[in-house]
Amino acid sequence: MHALIAPAPFKGSLSAAAAAEAMVEGARRAAHELGRSLALDVVPLADGGEGTVDAVQRARGGTLRHARVRDPLGRPIEAAYLLLDDGTAVVEMAAASGLPLLAAHERDPLRASTHGTGDLIAAALDAGARRLVIGVGGSATVDGGAGMAEALGVRLLDDAGHPLPPSGGALLGLAHVDLLALRPGLRDVEIDVLCDVQNPLCGPNGAARVFGPQKGATPAMVETLDAGLGRLGEVLEREVGRPLAQMPGAGAAGGLAAGLAGFLGARLRPGIDVILDLLDVPRRLRAADLALTGEGQLDRQTSGGKVIAGLARAADEAGVPVVAIAGRVVPQARELYTRGLRAAFSLADGPRSLEECEAHGAALLARASENVVRLWLAAAASGNRRQAPGDGPPTTGD
Amino acid sequence: MHALIAPAPFKGSLSAAAAAEAMVEGARRAAHELGRSLALDVVPLADGGEGTVDAVQRARGGTLRHARVRDPLGRPIEAAYLLLDDGTAVVEMAAASGLPLLAAHERDPLRASTHGTGDLIAAALDAGARRLVIGVGGSATVDGGAGMAEALGVRLLDDAGHPLPPSGGALLGLAHVDLLALRPGLRDVEIDVLCDVQNPLCGPNGAARVFGPQKGATPAMVETLDAGLGRLGEVLEREVGRPLAQMPGAGAAGGLAAGLAGFLGARLRPGIDVILDLLDVPRRLRAADLALTGEGQLDRQTSGGKVIAGLARAADEAGVPVVAIAGRVVPQARELYTRGLRAAFSLADGPRSLEECEAHGAALLARASENVVRLWLAAAASGNRRQAPGDGPPTTGD
Repeated sequence: MHALIAPAPFKGSLSAAAAAEAMVEGARRAAHELGRSLALDVVPLADGGEGTVDAVQRARGGTLRHARVRDPLGRPIEAAYLLLDDGTAVVEMAAASGLPLLAAHERDPLRASTHGTGDLIAAALDAGARRLVIGVGGSATVDGGAGMAEALGVRLLDDAGHPLPPSGGALLGLAHVDLLALRPGLRDVEIDVLCDVQNPLCGPNGAARVFGPQKGATPAMVETLDAGLGRLGEVLEREVGRPLAQMPGAGAAGGLAAGLAGFLGARLRPGIDVILDLLDVPRRLRAADLALTGEGQLDRQTSGGKVIAGLARAADEAGVPVVAIAGRVVPQARELYTRGLRAAFSLADGPRSLEECEAHGAALLARASENVVRLWLAAAASGNRRQAPGDGPPTTGD
Repeated sequence: MHALIAPAPFKGSLSAAAAAEAMVEGARRAAHELGRSLALDVVPLADGGEGTVDAVQRARGGTLRHARVRDPLGRPIEAAYLLLDDGTAVVEMAAASGLPLLAAHERDPLRASTHGTGDLIAAALDAGARRLVIGVGGSATVDGGAGMAEALGVRLLDDAGHPLPPSGGALLGLAHVDLLALRPGLRDVEIDVLCDVQNPLCGPNGAARVFGPQKGATPAMVETLDAGLGRLGEVLEREVGRPLAQMPGAGAAGGLAAGLAGFLGARLRPGIDVILDLLDVPRRLRAADLALTGEGQLDRQTSGGKVIAGLARAADEAGVPVVAIAGRVVPQARELYTRGLRAAFSLADGPRSLEECEAHGAALLARASENVVRLWLAAAASGNRRQAPGDGPPTTGD
């Protein structure tokens, strides 16, 4: 039997790598105790948010590169990105422009800028990157990618042609964008943004209103930021010809997704789809009899469960059954049954508090994985069992 | 696919029949959604305690008979037993001599008697029973089966040859037993006692010390009762030639098991073994590809888990994999893997309190069963999938 072990992180409990390790332990125990051979291919997944660089590096190797960049408030920090042998750079915006880089009292969404993410992209291009994969989770900013653009040579100008500071608070004054000095060669670089929200750039479901408050925006700031993002969208559509107003996901990372699409022509793609390709998962699935995945909470595709939904879709295309083990399996997760998921189990071994499930996550996941593989191997063996003709079951009680 | 659905009761939540119904619902849903055929044979199990008559009647039919008997304190009540077509009577001692028949203030282990159980046995013999299966859970008595024996014609005599009252409190005065008037024909009747404790008749692990207090015995009463049971054992060994002192299980039901063995030559057997035979489970297993069972708590064989351990043993003999779903699966339950159990899952779908698990037991069990059958069917289908030669998985990450 060949199994692909491909869990997502169990948030609050296990990294994807730790989850994979527990699943391997359980699967091996099952095979060993049943005296069966089991080949395992292990690929911890990421959802395109935090942990993306780590997951890709585990699977693909490459070199972790460090660059001097600006933090959201302009202070110099060192940030890392991953450069693969094929010229793909994997950049997490949070490394340069993430909320965790600021102390709570430093949160300042009017001033915070994605210029550091632009610095990081510039560093990757300097290092020879020919393709960019950009994760956009956890931003401290609501600047529509203005800072990122400015760092790459774009000029943001007011009505009088004067340059604006590249931050969310200044966008309301935006009148023109000047891309003449945009870093050469960027137009030949393929850019995929790992985009797992559907929020538009602005409006009631936009970046400022939905995500602004968690970045420190007061209601008044939210209004300013939302109006600024709206202005940015208008200017980009008018002057660059890229319509962003209705683009789903443009509001990700304080509108950085919009900026990447508008200024650089990036594609916004579901994070898991890009990750699966980067990790060579479709080919690895075709070599497996079973894919075993997992996640902290298995939910319907529209909220959580994106990683598993994506994997299930890929597994379905490869004709390989995929089974999930999650900390919690909500009833609505059965929607995933129609999208390739074959079965879903919780790692809970009985009545347990959330704290217990998290504290014993690795051991519980190993046990659940062991039982899934045990059942799988028993079923496979049973399929080969001879059936005496006419030896059907009685129909009593049914 | 042919599956045998054979759960035990989920105590505190689901009867065996209700558990079976939930498992059937889940299994059918899985087969339906996957477009696979599924033949189900359903047999709710009992452990030989409460619910035994019900489980046997569901599976075997037979007639529920009612008899006028004495309750533990001698008051007339009506009690039922089951008479099968083959002449087997299934008697639960609790129907005539159970603790639930007494109000809390009526508990009186010195006086309580199993005479009603003797009445019920007599009624079964009157009705033509040629074999007796006796469940011994939940007794109100600590009389070593003295009352049962007296009801069937045995005389209990003191030193002076005077008859003694047939209760635990009188046993200390026992000097002789007289079996001359024992009901004729009883020696030709095969008697199996469904015996699931290992406690001896008396001593530190005996019936009085271990189970006396829950029947209302004070520490002083426990001493009296333990000494009385010891006396009964001596007399039976000396005068009937049946050594009971070391017999495991003789202490079941206040020593009724000892009395059935000593006075009537009954065999003490693990309840589940007798139940499985009565329910024709070995043959039904041979017709199945998979047996699905369940229980409130899946434990090592030595404490809980007896039903599942028994079923797993029988399934192992039949060469059929058995999978359990329990409210709680303790880590030590893995001992059962060496005794035929292939896999064990909890019905919990995530962090849940015991109260939630019990309140939603049927729905959770149905979902868990659905997932087990889904996984089974996927594995069976995958077994038939062609493997391209050399199309093994890469070994990276393993």
